[in-house]
Amino acid sequence: MKNLIILISSCTALFFSGVAAHAADGAKKGGDGLPDPGVVFVKGQTAIVITDPQIDFLSPDGVAWALVGKSVTKNGTVENIEKLMKIAGEKDILLVISPHFYAPQDLTFKHGGALEHAMHGIKMFESDERLDQAGFKPSTGPDFMPQYKKYINNGKTAVANPHKVYGPDTNDTVLQLRKRNVSKIILAGMSANLCTESHLREFMEQGFEVLVVKDATAAAQLPGMDGYAAAMTNVRMIANGVRTTEEVLVQINKEL
Amino acid sequence: MKNLIILISSCTALFFSGVAAHAADGAKKGGDGLPDPGVVFVKGQTAIVITDPQIDFLSPDGVAWALVGKSVTKNGTVENIEKLMKIAGEKDILLVISPHFYAPQDLTFKHGGALEHAMHGIKMFESDERLDQAGFKPSTGPDFMPQYKKYINNGKTAVANPHKVYGPDTNDTVLQLRKRNVSKIILAGMSANLCTESHLREFMEQGFEVLVVKDATAAAQLPGMDGYAAAMTNVRMIANGVRTTEEVLVQINKEL
Amino acid sequence: MKNLIILISSCTALFFSGVAAHAADGAKKGGDGLPDPGVVFVKGQTAIVITDPQIDFLSPDGVAWALVGKSVTKNGTVENIEKLMKIAGEKDILLVISPHFYAPQDLTFKHGGALEHAMHGIKMFESDERLDQAGFKPSTGPDFMPQYKKYINNGKTAVANPHKVYGPDTNDTVLQLRKRNVSKIILAGMSANLCTESHLREFMEQGFEVLVVKDATAAAQLPGMDGYAAAMTNVRMIANGVRTTEEVLVQINKEL
Amino acid sequence: MKNLIILISSCTALFFSGVAAHAADGAKKGGDGLPDPGVVFVKGQTAIVITDPQIDFLSPDGVAWALVGKSVTKNGTVENIEKLMKIAGEKDILLVISPHFYAPQDLTFKHGGALEHAMHGIKMFESDERLDQAGFKPSTGPDFMPQYKKYINNGKTAVANPHKVYGPDTNDTVLQLRKRNVSKIILAGMSANLCTESHLREFMEQGFEVLVVKDATAAAQLPGMDGYAAAMTNVRMIANGVRTTEEVLVQINKEL
Repeated sequence: MKNLIILISSCTALFFSGVAAHAADGAKKGGDGLPDPGVVFVKGQTAIVITDPQIDFLSPDGVAWALVGKSVTKNGTVENIEKLMKIAGEKDILLVISPHFYAPQDLTFKHGGALEHAMHGIKMFESDERLDQAGFKPSTGPDFMPQYKKYINNGKTAVANPHKVYGPDTNDTVLQLRKRNVSKIILAGMSANLCTESHLREFMEQGFEVLVVKDATAAAQLPGMDGYAAAMTNVRMIANGVRTTEEVLVQINKEL
Repeated sequence: MKNLIILISSCTALFFSGVAAHAADGAKKGGDGLPDPGVVFVKGQTAIVITDPQIDFLSPDGVAWALVGKSVTKNGTVENIEKLMKIAGEKDILLVISPHFYAPQDLTFKHGGALEHAMHGIKMFESDERLDQAGFKPSTGPDFMPQYKKYINNGKTAVANPHKVYGPDTNDTVLQLRKRNVSKIILAGMSANLCTESHLREFMEQGFEVLVVKDATAAAQLPGMDGYAAAMTNVRMIANGVRTTEEVLVQINKEL
Repeated sequence: MKNLIILISSCTALFFSGVAAHAADGAKKGGDGLPDPGVVFVKGQTAIVITDPQIDFLSPDGVAWALVGKSVTKNGTVENIEKLMKIAGEKDILLVISPHFYAPQDLTFKHGGALEHAMHGIKMFESDERLDQAGFKPSTGPDFMPQYKKYINNGKTAVANPHKVYGPDTNDTVLQLRKRNVSKIILAGMSANLCTESHLREFMEQGFEVLVVKDATAAAQLPGMDGYAAAMTNVRMIANGVRTTEEVLVQINKEL
Repeated sequence: MKNLIILISSCTALFFSGVAAHAADGAKKGGDGLPDPGVVFVKGQTAIVITDPQIDFLSPDGVAWALVGKSVTKNGTVENIEKLMKIAGEKDILLVISPHFYAPQDLTFKHGGALEHAMHGIKMFESDERLDQAGFKPSTGPDFMPQYKKYINNGKTAVANPHKVYGPDTNDTVLQLRKRNVSKIILAGMSANLCTESHLREFMEQGFEVLVVKDATAAAQLPGMDGYAAAMTNVRMIANGVRTTEEVLVQINKEL
């Protein structure tokens, strides 16, 4: 056991020394010994992307509250997302929303993963919105949180089409960003290990730089399966950086 | 605390009852209360996909062994991957390999996430393979494990181009599968929470059904960041099913 | 010149003889000497996909009629699309609509190609539809053709999210198909060399088999730039087959 | 007929007037009445992408010469591609090559479009290159043109993995560009209406700005199917701009 710890220590040391050799990228070391490349914000090239800021996830009235409510409350997720939306408007930073949403015909999909089944089971994010029909009823589960609407409907925020699994692969989030020359993303929203992490992973495949805001997200916590802990491990390894809302606000005020 | 547990219990009950209502899919309940849709294997429509079966991950000679070796050893990952490769040949099941690999010019990428930096730091998966040059030297880090080569070079296995981040988004794995009418995937390989999970997530976005083999994978375990635990939480929620190698072999022998 | 013709003739002969050697695929020869693999329809694996069946393209009231009207009229595109929609309902074939559509914020994209500029110039496909708002006004340009609505709103047809450039890369058309086990596509709609052809190209990259219905599409014809002729050349080379509506109806009646 | 011409004229006038209203983009009018947005080159954000600069397409020794040779010769394609490669080195502009290439196992794909069949028929772009094997023999059909090798093997050029259908969807071309902050593409190579056009279309879906070099490409010309003419119609409509090699060199010398 002692040997193992030594091995790990020497390895993380190796990781950092290797990164030092990869100096062109200027990656600093985090307190955990892993590289912490971070993202330098540049005006006009930086956007805030929020996944699933919807009632079903963020309100006690939402169908998933029993699963995620504890994590949402502990992190102050609702308030932290609002802080990010607010500064986007103040600093003229592009805000992009990628919502989760099922139209009636999506319920005839013939197969899906465990949580896809679960979501359909509790009728999460379901609406009869259709291209030629009226939108869904305000303040039902798939709707945006009421306090976010003034930031979303301000005439500047881009609302991508709904994604249908977890990632932005099936909607136009990436296009919304690229058509506005954005290459650096501040990522937050729900839920940490599902839609937020899938957005992170796809953004990295697409060559974006991504900073994840760890307390402006939250996740389902089930016995033996802590979605928030899982996400924190994975986003630390995958993203360019992981920061608190407070740290991101400070960096935005300094750089944008 | 007691209340919370009750909430969670009633919620997972709700999840299952909901799924029961979604009966067309016939999703059964797992021991953990989550839906367990599973995948029914169909001859000619099912493939085994292995991510990164390479020396740098799976051998004590590999550069990442200090990080993943404990998990690889505990799971019997090397042997379990071989069992899957072996039955693929015996049962004429398509085997697809999605390797991880950096060509020299990839090292001039201008940015990357934490583990991308770390991998470049330890020169993981690096080779001078190029379209018009000789391949990499046998038995170096990016090479396949020696005992796997007879299964990979059997004239039937499809080796996709190397992926460059974690997922199959930047290579031809999906095309290799779809051009052969495969829609059901048995997924294993390295490492659980990075390339294997990113393959799972992208496969789900692409509408595949995926069964993850939980002991034919493994992951980096760092202080406070257990990549394997994170992966197990996420694949349980995302995939159609999670099984042991033994369970998969039994199902293959029964259905294929 | 005579030499050239001989070269071409011997080459197309070579193409066919080569294909004969590639006999596993059983590709027949078209009247033009090119392989004509075709698509064998299989119940439950075949869908009809229609791009942009909207007023702006298909009605004299649409903003693009001056550009495409002649081609639409000559091909009988409006009627032929309806024939495909009708038989989809009768034969229980999945019908998927992939509409073209710009939300208000899309007009702040910072760059686009020539026709993207042109479309914004004539306010084509623009609407204020948003996730939390009412849909667009019936019978305006982005709306579906009135006679198609009974097929689209029949509770079975899947309407994908709008695509934003020309292809299905930015919407969920592929997911709609794969989640229902569809691998064979009968493709039609507007406009032949832009959205229809981009859908064809992406479907081929995704490993679908695609039959293009050549008289259930049409295109802009400008001086020196015949979009329909361009599409017919390209889809002949790229698709698995190109057929008339009548031929497709006969094949459907025989095979589905 | 006279009426039609008037309609078209008034429509292109409408297109331009509309674009004038869309003035934020500053799109100028081309001689053909269509918007001509063009691309402003910016140092460090601009790359030259060449598709399929390989013997099978560009040399009389290549298997497709009988189909494309006339177009290649007329356009001076071989020389014009070299001019682009040369100035890339001189001006330190990123050069990315996206080759076309089939590994042995790719020949067991179960279906494909007409030209995919034709290419397999004449054994185009086939090699036994594999991740753990030696590369293909120099100067065979899939190899790069000999005179291009000094530009490709200069230690700076990025060679993407081979694409397997026509577009960059199945390789890492987009990642190679985005990981180096490139958003503006000068596109050339073979063949105009297949791989080059599919790269253009996918790049547009990904939000790049693309300038197509019309005489640094060429295409198959078959009786009744002129691939080059088809491509010229489509790229004019889709790309941000279409220029000659000479015009691009002038612009590079001015802006980069």
